[in-house]
Amino acid sequence: MTAQLYCFGESGNAYKAALALTLAGADWQPVFVDFFNGETRGPAFRAINPMGEVPVLVEDGEVLTQSGMILDHIARKTGRFGGSTPAAQQEVWRWVLWDNHKLSGQAGTCRFLMNFLSAEKRPEGVIPFLQGRLKAAYTVLNDHLAQRDWIADTGPTIADFSCCGYLYYPEPFGFTRADWPHIDRWLGRIATLPGWKHPYDLMPGNPSDRA
Amino acid sequence: MTAQLYCFGESGNAYKAALALTLAGADWQPVFVDFFNGETRGPAFRAINPMGEVPVLVEDGEVLTQSGMILDHIARKTGRFGGSTPAAQQEVWRWVLWDNHKLSGQAGTCRFLMNFLSAEKRPEGVIPFLQGRLKAAYTVLNDHLAQRDWIADTGPTIADFSCCGYLYYPEPFGFTRADWPHIDRWLGRIATLPGWKHPYDLMPGNPSDRA
Repeated sequence: MTAQLYCFGESGNAYKAALALTLAGADWQPVFVDFFNGETRGPAFRAINPMGEVPVLVEDGEVLTQSGMILDHIARKTGRFGGSTPAAQQEVWRWVLWDNHKLSGQAGTCRFLMNFLSAEKRPEGVIPFLQGRLKAAYTVLNDHLAQRDWIADTGPTIADFSCCGYLYYPEPFGFTRADWPHIDRWLGRIATLPGWKHPYDLMPGNPSDRA
Repeated sequence: MTAQLYCFGESGNAYKAALALTLAGADWQPVFVDFFNGETRGPAFRAINPMGEVPVLVEDGEVLTQSGMILDHIARKTGRFGGSTPAAQQEVWRWVLWDNHKLSGQAGTCRFLMNFLSAEKRPEGVIPFLQGRLKAAYTVLNDHLAQRDWIADTGPTIADFSCCGYLYYPEPFGFTRADWPHIDRWLGRIATLPGWKHPYDLMPGNPSDRA
């Protein structure tokens, strides 16, 4: 049965799931969530996910939330990208957790504040603070990729798809690929995987809808 | 062999691991990390954990980082607190991920800025911003606990130990137990588990060391 992914183009957390589904060759379709008109805060969406977040994956009646859980589900179900050894599987989870805490968790917020919030609502001082913390995260990831092609294994895994979630978007949030050469090359490698697509080509909704 | 947990009293992320080790009856000892004098940023510590974070668990030559990975390791090794069914195990991970992203990830930063950074270094506007986002997280957790005693199963799991990481500390960071009655009762339940200890009684180092 076709899996349904509740998502919208601007969500890097949803992109992780959409990308993994696509690269794993899963049968899926997107269900557009109108985040910018408050859909994730409304009772209908909260009934699906009380955490009030995308992505949500609905498959065979099962409802999965949290991008890390959805990635793990895709890896188990398709037998792809979960890590080829127990040690690699452990590394996958370590980096998915790190990404949630230090990379995507902060990049998503920073990008939202800089691009999708009107200037008068923008909280003073938060953007440079987040950018400073993100610089430390980019440094950890860039150093990690200096001697290796993929984050957790000898080939791509869901850890790569998690960490890249926000890093292909064109809107400025203080991340410039040229500043981080190992991250830059790694993003290039992911983009050569058969079937890879940019977030705005994989999920409905993008900033031009609101222009 | 006695496991070694690199930690310090003020770290709620380290507390998650220390608490799980203690409640599971594991053989462990703390190794004090002098975070406030920069130890996690130095080369010796980075050689142990390039992510530059506590907790780190060293056991039988294996080095584990990320509190979620350490909690999972403790649950597997001791056979306790990992969730009693596959569905509960999935719920455990969903909430550990949520905690890293939305609860501890932000509560730790907010508490640090409000209590452990000199006023002149405190970034303008960041504290109310984080408190606003944390209020949304407390609401999700409080609502979740309205109809149940434990986060992910019929008994305590590592998801409870993850989410409570910062919530017993006395320093103000905008969280008051009385405002969130279901969280308050749940924290009370955790504190009645045999062997429970407050973070400052379980790990070396606390604010009075620097008074």
